[in-house]
Amino acid sequence: MEHLFDKLQAYAREEIYPCHMPGHKRQGWGKLPKELYQLDITEIEGFDNLHQPEGILLNLQKKAAEIYGAEESFYLVNGSTCGILSAVSCALPRGGHLLMARNCHRSAYHAAYLRDLKPSYLYPPCLEEYEVFDAVTPLQVRKALEREPHIGAVLIVSPTYEGRIADVGAVAEIAHDKGIPLIVDEAHGAHLGLRRGDPPNSCQLGADLVVHSVHKTLPSLTQTALLHVNGSLVDRERLRRFLHIYQSSSPSYLLMAGIDNALAYVEKDGDRAMDRFQKHMKETRKALRRCRHLKFLPEDGRQDPGKLLISVKGTNLTGKQLYDILLQEYGLQMEMASGSYALAMFTLNDREEAFHRVTEALLEIDGRLREGTENFFRWKEEIFRSCPDAISLGTAWDRNTELVPLEGSVGRHGGDFICPYPPGSPLVVPGEVITEEMCRLVRKYIEEGLSVQGVVLKDEIFVRVIMP
Amino acid sequence: MEHLFDKLQAYAREEIYPCHMPGHKRQGWGKLPKELYQLDITEIEGFDNLHQPEGILLNLQKKAAEIYGAEESFYLVNGSTCGILSAVSCALPRGGHLLMARNCHRSAYHAAYLRDLKPSYLYPPCLEEYEVFDAVTPLQVRKALEREPHIGAVLIVSPTYEGRIADVGAVAEIAHDKGIPLIVDEAHGAHLGLRRGDPPNSCQLGADLVVHSVHKTLPSLTQTALLHVNGSLVDRERLRRFLHIYQSSSPSYLLMAGIDNALAYVEKDGDRAMDRFQKHMKETRKALRRCRHLKFLPEDGRQDPGKLLISVKGTNLTGKQLYDILLQEYGLQMEMASGSYALAMFTLNDREEAFHRVTEALLEIDGRLREGTENFFRWKEEIFRSCPDAISLGTAWDRNTELVPLEGSVGRHGGDFICPYPPGSPLVVPGEVITEEMCRLVRKYIEEGLSVQGVVLKDEIFVRVIMP
Repeated sequence: MEHLFDKLQAYAREEIYPCHMPGHKRQGWGKLPKELYQLDITEIEGFDNLHQPEGILLNLQKKAAEIYGAEESFYLVNGSTCGILSAVSCALPRGGHLLMARNCHRSAYHAAYLRDLKPSYLYPPCLEEYEVFDAVTPLQVRKALEREPHIGAVLIVSPTYEGRIADVGAVAEIAHDKGIPLIVDEAHGAHLGLRRGDPPNSCQLGADLVVHSVHKTLPSLTQTALLHVNGSLVDRERLRRFLHIYQSSSPSYLLMAGIDNALAYVEKDGDRAMDRFQKHMKETRKALRRCRHLKFLPEDGRQDPGKLLISVKGTNLTGKQLYDILLQEYGLQMEMASGSYALAMFTLNDREEAFHRVTEALLEIDGRLREGTENFFRWKEEIFRSCPDAISLGTAWDRNTELVPLEGSVGRHGGDFICPYPPGSPLVVPGEVITEEMCRLVRKYIEEGLSVQGVVLKDEIFVRVIMP
Repeated sequence: MEHLFDKLQAYAREEIYPCHMPGHKRQGWGKLPKELYQLDITEIEGFDNLHQPEGILLNLQKKAAEIYGAEESFYLVNGSTCGILSAVSCALPRGGHLLMARNCHRSAYHAAYLRDLKPSYLYPPCLEEYEVFDAVTPLQVRKALEREPHIGAVLIVSPTYEGRIADVGAVAEIAHDKGIPLIVDEAHGAHLGLRRGDPPNSCQLGADLVVHSVHKTLPSLTQTALLHVNGSLVDRERLRRFLHIYQSSSPSYLLMAGIDNALAYVEKDGDRAMDRFQKHMKETRKALRRCRHLKFLPEDGRQDPGKLLISVKGTNLTGKQLYDILLQEYGLQMEMASGSYALAMFTLNDREEAFHRVTEALLEIDGRLREGTENFFRWKEEIFRSCPDAISLGTAWDRNTELVPLEGSVGRHGGDFICPYPPGSPLVVPGEVITEEMCRLVRKYIEEGLSVQGVVLKDEIFVRVIMP
């Protein structure tokens, strides 16, 4: 098996002079390590072309398909974002009807906007004790498909940002019974199904299009991803078209070598690393049972073990305060904070030290906690249920808008996405009617120092609404 | 001025443990240099967010604007591709009317398809002696705008892939007289206008939206680019929206640091490097005057000096043969080959050695050449003039298609792009009527071993046409 990282390194040692791009001419410049430049090439002889792969890139993509149990796989250099855009764009004609989970990433809404789709939402149930969305259920999908016969494709997210895993196999069967494809945004699950006995990935469960962020849970470089395709419900030529559209025509060989390197690692050391990882996670969770205040979203067979959701609900801390304490006092940078929790993320590549440091820090913090209501968010799934008089996304986002103070937006149609980031799934979608509950949440997020996209902070909080 | 490369390196030395993405946890894995992983972070505390920049990334973008004389600049991590997609998408409403040069990069056509635009083409004049497109002229733009009053934006490419520079200032005036924005795909011109006395860049000449590939002519990493915006004809909020849509929500800090590093280089060493570069180019061109057979597209004030177009027209070699000889016998990898020429690309970052090696190789090859007609391509601008009964791109590309043998496609509507690559501007656009001349060119390209996207090679050459 020829690897890109080997080939790039071998090429860097050759004496061929580059009378071509990139402009750095494979020499180091300034303060970045020169290794970056030495390996950074363009589509020259022998290095294939990601947009028409016939050589090494085709072989690497075949290898990726083999690893994940997919029929065909594509390397992505514009993140899962371009995978979602491409999958949704190819699965439906312009103006088509998409059934999508309301907790999808923004990129799914962007695809719906670009292709002027008619989205119908699946509102995922809420795990109220932890104030997180659960994954959508097969029953929800079945009911929606019965209710709306014109739906042409289904899109769900699994695992969710917080690690909730859907029953993808059952959802796939339901979609296929209707003769339509299932797209799974499995950006957070590139580590699934790599070993017999582990939770399978969505390719193995029958999904038609599956997106994996390779950098999120495997040792690849940020902005790298994979798209897998299976079955005959998806037109592969159309899929290639959209991948071509949404990705740079000068794809980075560094990023592609990063994917190759991560998958080579999985092949060589993955089993052993997974054993080690599962052992560490088990020990960590066991040790954390001694906490009296902090709670942890349990591993119930539908929870990705790598995501440790640390709930401060019912204590005198907010999620952001816990996040800050962990960073400032313990040097532990969490993945994110939300109203009532912080999220730690572990992968096959964590050092043993990490598990010990996190355990000790949390036990120590737990010892100082008191009961309280600091983080009382009253997070409910109803918050997201849009009013019947919503304007469709495709038209709403192109309407003229005005900025109004947050509380003045109640009852108005949202003019932009309002999106706590991370995780990046929208609280308000353009065209939805903004509710009091939504405003309360936005204010709370901002007051707690969390990042929210789509608001303008001056002396007040402003949001964008559609002009009457 | 705080630089991203410094800040990333400083952060790599800190003791903060990453309980977050990316999965590699900033450790080296496998065979790629560990420096790549150490600097590859996600949006953590202090590192801002490209999609809502408020700190270091905002400052770096302001610096980029200052360097190029733009009002506002954006770092791009999905190449000029996403810059073109965003510029075109924001400049016009869905279904709007775009005046575009027919030698635009594929991404411009992709934007037109995505937004269902009505494109009108400017057919650039052909420099027949060298068989390359020249840049479009202000007169062409003026006439088109007079003929078609509904045009809402103009898009041209300058410099072209082969280095032809348009009179952007005049084109901008004409567009502004009509109250519409000018977009310049200046992907090949990120080195322009950096120093007083040099040819200006399109921001300095009044263009509203300008796209620069930073990696093409400056020492940045592949897949990095900049988008600049000026004036009041472009809605900046809409522009941000589309940049958000077409770029990964996990942008690579390596790529962003690459842009920062290249611009820091330009600020610190740019003037000196440009002097050195211009001196070398002048000497090279002077030395090459001794060639008896090879011709070089001259520097006429409208030619980017960094692009050396080596014409074999009238000799017994084809462009591809020259390209192969330079690679195999002299270890010189050219940027590209076309029917009757090869293209060498020089930047501020070429070593002196490069100029000498290329000069000596070309003089030596020239000594062996004979007169001939091997490369007789009869390349004319008329080839690209589409018939009046073309189907619009937006609908054509979604129609059902069939594969037919190349010569059987004459008179049929093309079903896919047919695109010699490089440079990546299409010979056939979906919906255009395929002519005999186009087929002849496609066959010639393939017979000469050049790469053509959109054809299927079995025992014959097949292309895709719209089903009747």
